[in-house]
Amino acid sequence: MRYELYYWPIIQGRGEFVRLALEAAGADYVDVARGNDDAGTGMPAMFELLNGETVERPSFAPPFLKAGRLLIGQTANILQYLGPRHRLAPTGEPGRLWVHQLQLTLCDVVDEVHDSHHPIASGLYYEDQRREAKKRTADFLDQRAPKYLGHFERVLARNPSGDQHLAGARLSYADLSLFQVVDGLRYAFPRAMKRLEKKLPRVAALHARVSERPRVRAYLESERRIAFNEDGIFRRYKELDAG
Amino acid sequence: MRYELYYWPIIQGRGEFVRLALEAAGADYVDVARGNDDAGTGMPAMFELLNGETVERPSFAPPFLKAGRLLIGQTANILQYLGPRHRLAPTGEPGRLWVHQLQLTLCDVVDEVHDSHHPIASGLYYEDQRREAKKRTADFLDQRAPKYLGHFERVLARNPSGDQHLAGARLSYADLSLFQVVDGLRYAFPRAMKRLEKKLPRVAALHARVSERPRVRAYLESERRIAFNEDGIFRRYKELDAG
Repeated sequence: MRYELYYWPIIQGRGEFVRLALEAAGADYVDVARGNDDAGTGMPAMFELLNGETVERPSFAPPFLKAGRLLIGQTANILQYLGPRHRLAPTGEPGRLWVHQLQLTLCDVVDEVHDSHHPIASGLYYEDQRREAKKRTADFLDQRAPKYLGHFERVLARNPSGDQHLAGARLSYADLSLFQVVDGLRYAFPRAMKRLEKKLPRVAALHARVSERPRVRAYLESERRIAFNEDGIFRRYKELDAG
Repeated sequence: MRYELYYWPIIQGRGEFVRLALEAAGADYVDVARGNDDAGTGMPAMFELLNGETVERPSFAPPFLKAGRLLIGQTANILQYLGPRHRLAPTGEPGRLWVHQLQLTLCDVVDEVHDSHHPIASGLYYEDQRREAKKRTADFLDQRAPKYLGHFERVLARNPSGDQHLAGARLSYADLSLFQVVDGLRYAFPRAMKRLEKKLPRVAALHARVSERPRVRAYLESERRIAFNEDGIFRRYKELDAG
């Protein structure tokens, strides 16, 4: 089956967590909104499923995934669907719940990163909330990021199967997502992350290990990987990055 | 099995979504942190599972649920576990994914409600970010709340089994959570909600229907239901409520 991923075509954003899972699994998929409008793909195809009046199970926002007749929204929910099908999650319920719990916490980090540059309104420009963004980002880097990343460091340290993975002895979609969160934070806040990572040896090692996996590396080096940019969730604004 | 729910004892907060599901299911549970310290319950018991160094699968934050040997964190994840066991979710995978998707979107609403009064830092007092809270709440009430609630109105209208439930022909945990979101928004923003609800007949009817279910009503009238207050997620600050 060829999956259809629907997400904004010019940013990594939340869709990137799904792209990484599909790529690491070697799954067959189309990144629909990046296709040509003429070919029945592109943004019109995405908006039809997002806003079409006959869509029985509409998503509130991208990303969403079409898998045969299923239409699945919400990043963590999509990953939960893909996980056991592509050996990116344990098959038993306790393991699946645990990986999903980790993913939901990673999604919380992503929400907070988004709000670091958009603390007032997602519909306004960054420039219109820069003052507030400075205050929110200072708190994020001082309090929230160390708390979140320290949590994942601890989870790695306590994994009875070893600190190579967040859960069990195999790669899971939560590992891929932690890789992406670290990658994004390094892009957005290089100075702050250099400081923070001194206390995060396992998290940093996981990032390196994931990036060296053949399929992940091939993806990261391909044109399918959109570069970080200031329309996405992880944005580099020098004035926000506390050293 | 007697479930153990761990959550802050003086607020509804995110734990309330789990309490409502347990109550509507007539499940046997203890609200641990509300118990006596002397009896091995209370806040020390919660902090032991939250911060204890031997906890193999620690949660980032409450709520979490102990179900036999399982320790499950993240509100939506707990509900996903309870749902099929207590007839609060469909048993088939497509239905379960859909209810979970709805729940995750409801959790997003809750996050945004939290940030309406805490747009800069969750560790600071509201009074220290009141200026920013006014701006963020104005955007929330003007843009985000109508968009979210309109989404659920649409989901109800499109349910092929009828507009009595969000998914299928039976009560699900997502219905309970939508009830709670509406209840909270009415508490926090009575003037704004009066205006918004004119376009939300199905959402308002669902709120009424859920509140009239015998178990839910018994719970709401009991001392187990903590009153809304200004330590929780839904807070009534007159200056934030736009008419």
